[in-house]
Amino acid sequence: MKPYRKEIVMDVPTRRGFENITSQVRECLRESGIQEGLCLVNPMHITASVFINDDEDGLHQDYDRWLEKIAPHEPVSAYLHNRTGEDNADAHMKRQVMGREVVVAVTGGKLDFGTWEQIFYCEFDGGRPKRVLVKIIGE
Amino acid sequence: MKPYRKEIVMDVPTRRGFENITSQVRECLRESGIQEGLCLVNPMHITASVFINDDEDGLHQDYDRWLEKIAPHEPVSAYLHNRTGEDNADAHMKRQVMGREVVVAVTGGKLDFGTWEQIFYCEFDGGRPKRVLVKIIGE
Amino acid sequence: MKPYRKEIVMDVPTRRGFENITSQVRECLRESGIQEGLCLVNPMHITASVFINDDEDGLHQDYDRWLEKIAPHEPVSAYLHNRTGEDNADAHMKRQVMGREVVVAVTGGKLDFGTWEQIFYCEFDGGRPKRVLVKIIGE
Repeated sequence: MKPYRKEIVMDVPTRRGFENITSQVRECLRESGIQEGLCLVNPMHITASVFINDDEDGLHQDYDRWLEKIAPHEPVSAYLHNRTGEDNADAHMKRQVMGREVVVAVTGGKLDFGTWEQIFYCEFDGGRPKRVLVKIIGE
Repeated sequence: MKPYRKEIVMDVPTRRGFENITSQVRECLRESGIQEGLCLVNPMHITASVFINDDEDGLHQDYDRWLEKIAPHEPVSAYLHNRTGEDNADAHMKRQVMGREVVVAVTGGKLDFGTWEQIFYCEFDGGRPKRVLVKIIGE
Repeated sequence: MKPYRKEIVMDVPTRRGFENITSQVRECLRESGIQEGLCLVNPMHITASVFINDDEDGLHQDYDRWLEKIAPHEPVSAYLHNRTGEDNADAHMKRQVMGREVVVAVTGGKLDFGTWEQIFYCEFDGGRPKRVLVKIIGE
């Protein structure tokens, strides 16, 4: 069994944003030389998500509005967590809806994806650099 | 390390529906001969979920009503994604709530499950065949 | 490839509650001797979640209130599932929002975590002992 590990640095300037990281994960897989196994991708931060869905800008705007309805940023005083001096409690809620990590099958040296599957980094509390972990195990 | 891969074809005739796929995943595991490892199950499509919960019809109807309340199908014009000619933006939201994939421990050649754990395919935009990927790695 | 398996018993006396299980998972990893691989942690029950987020009490109270708003416990008669004699349909909804399992990278014999990542068991239907499965594969 061969392990591979890499950190990808994300720096979303806005509070919230979506970034397609599929090509960066593919590059990791190529670099690893692993042909068969599993690939884990997760933010190393707790106010961001990694998820798999469609690369369509309208959809991402829909996600953003929908998440803001489910867990609004304001009023920040509505959240106990924000009494610690933070203003990002909503980001912790949104991240749970979208999930933390994805696990992707590796087959024949490729991400074993359906036609429309793409990996996204989703930022809910941006404006500073954050790290995404790619860990691949296999042979 | 031994890899195993299989696609299961789902064909839910209605827009939304739940299918118990536990026995099909068990058959994959048996066929793989893997005794210890991890089993990943995910739809290869982005408007469906694979999740683990109870095989109780009332619960599935509750899920369906609840998801429709959180992310209603209509009005379809409420979603930017539907301006692409689609009418399935709600399906992309619902899929995020229920999740994409499950990872199940394999122990002694069996799915290492508690009493009530069952694997479901959950369709949010049916009426056409879709694929579920089963990838098992281990020994 | 080396497999490791352990069950952790949780016994949350209240209906709902959060428990930090990071140190117990770390102890499993130490016991396994595995240096590189993947660690799966999941409840073996369907009305509980394992998730990764911040160890901050205000945030957990925020989660609890927010989940109760998204999927209220009462009226219990609002859920078809509760006609089976259960009163925990809401717990099955809440568990889907928070997710079932986490998969954590193992690097150099450690949980490969960012600064604030901690593993929690989240109970939605407590008052009885439940099991959490820790499965680690690697070398």
